[in-house]
Amino acid sequence: MRDFRLTVGQWPVSDERDENLRRAEASLRQGAAEGAELCVLPEMFQTPYELGKMRARAESLEGPSLSAIRQLASELSLTVVAGSICEQRDKDFFNTSVVFGPDGAVLGVHRKVHLFDVQLETVRTQESLVLSPGEVPLVVDTPLCRLGVAICYDTRFPAVFQFFEKAGVEVVAIPAAFSQTTGTAHWHCLLRSRAVDYQIFLAAAGPAPNADSSYVTYGHSLVVDPWGTLLAEAGTGEETVGAKLEAETLTRVRRELPLIAHRRADLYRDWFSENS
Amino acid sequence: MRDFRLTVGQWPVSDERDENLRRAEASLRQGAAEGAELCVLPEMFQTPYELGKMRARAESLEGPSLSAIRQLASELSLTVVAGSICEQRDKDFFNTSVVFGPDGAVLGVHRKVHLFDVQLETVRTQESLVLSPGEVPLVVDTPLCRLGVAICYDTRFPAVFQFFEKAGVEVVAIPAAFSQTTGTAHWHCLLRSRAVDYQIFLAAAGPAPNADSSYVTYGHSLVVDPWGTLLAEAGTGEETVGAKLEAETLTRVRRELPLIAHRRADLYRDWFSENS
Repeated sequence: MRDFRLTVGQWPVSDERDENLRRAEASLRQGAAEGAELCVLPEMFQTPYELGKMRARAESLEGPSLSAIRQLASELSLTVVAGSICEQRDKDFFNTSVVFGPDGAVLGVHRKVHLFDVQLETVRTQESLVLSPGEVPLVVDTPLCRLGVAICYDTRFPAVFQFFEKAGVEVVAIPAAFSQTTGTAHWHCLLRSRAVDYQIFLAAAGPAPNADSSYVTYGHSLVVDPWGTLLAEAGTGEETVGAKLEAETLTRVRRELPLIAHRRADLYRDWFSENS
Repeated sequence: MRDFRLTVGQWPVSDERDENLRRAEASLRQGAAEGAELCVLPEMFQTPYELGKMRARAESLEGPSLSAIRQLASELSLTVVAGSICEQRDKDFFNTSVVFGPDGAVLGVHRKVHLFDVQLETVRTQESLVLSPGEVPLVVDTPLCRLGVAICYDTRFPAVFQFFEKAGVEVVAIPAAFSQTTGTAHWHCLLRSRAVDYQIFLAAAGPAPNADSSYVTYGHSLVVDPWGTLLAEAGTGEETVGAKLEAETLTRVRRELPLIAHRRADLYRDWFSENS
């Protein structure tokens, strides 16, 4: 990777698609104005995170929402992790994130692998009723860094980050719509711990809470470095916050606390062999 | 597992072995008096965590330090995770934790697998100069729960917890001597995140900071539940703190947020196959 500036954007996603797209545009324009080269948008950035609405708002990868983001990436010369949309592909629907390069090219597509089927007292949802899962996290070489993309619940699964580690990922972008309940309990802890364990920069963008929604998100979009230090954090409103990622931080942390070098793959093979 | 009470004990470990053993005894007696059935002692509980002193203070598993703890376990009818000592076995030295049952029987032995070789600005140490590594984390069935034991730096390695998960572990005990630097940056975050990710209770016991030592530890021994909630936490002095672990919490968290059930082992096989 090389040094570069990055932003994460959040806003209270509403039922009005065009309003959401205007807010996405404002976030990207602010990023570009601040000198960012990579901008991350929230999970479900053009329709509220509500199971009952997802399919009706689905688009293809060439639909109006992603076309608008693609055009902005090109106009502003930004690499953009286009949060996620509900994608329709033939008869199937996915929670899908697209990475656009600064020329507007599609650098990669991630379809959420782990669907959010939970029965918490305050959060009951079953994505698998309306969505199909993807099969593998996205790893893509951008002009800035080797980038990994995972969506929200994917973050809960260490295997996703072990896959990123194996692929040599340096920066992970996470569009995510944690709820008030899980966000309060786990958001900072999980994201900081992933950055520390796998010695990566991590940028997570979530929708700001919208009290009108049946699913109230947490906000607090953030950027964290491989030591677990919060470089930037939004509150709960419409905000785009940024940080400069310095390649030397990653090199230094991996040298001083060589967790990756200290993995004992020789032992782990025995621990996890079919026969043990 | 069944419901039971647990304590973690910490004190500023000094050069005086017998003083350390008196403090260990006080911690176990306090645990027993409070109705605890499992008591966890700190890493290197009978000699300060200093590379230069470890070998000189080494004992066998039948040496005076562990014999004293064994006798107390039996007298007080406690299951005890006897922190760790520097163990000498023939010509080799290990950072070793022993689990005693309430009848004084040795239930299991863990030798630290991941040796702490780091070059942080404020923490430079190389355990591998004086210690040999163990080969596998300990999993042991106690009368209370299926217990996993890992020591300090082992905690940094997700594979250790994936091994515990595979073995059906419910409670993990971690004798640990994090430094001021790494403790301030990572102690709460890492320990809470491990409990949340692997849906376990976790009890970590570290020596209280001793300003006279060349390696100043962090203290803050703690107990956390599978939702990441801190059930008990010590400060930086000589303290034994406890919490009741309720089996229903573990069952409920695993039911409501079924992370373990949601692992996609079918996909992970492909992600990590030798050919991919």
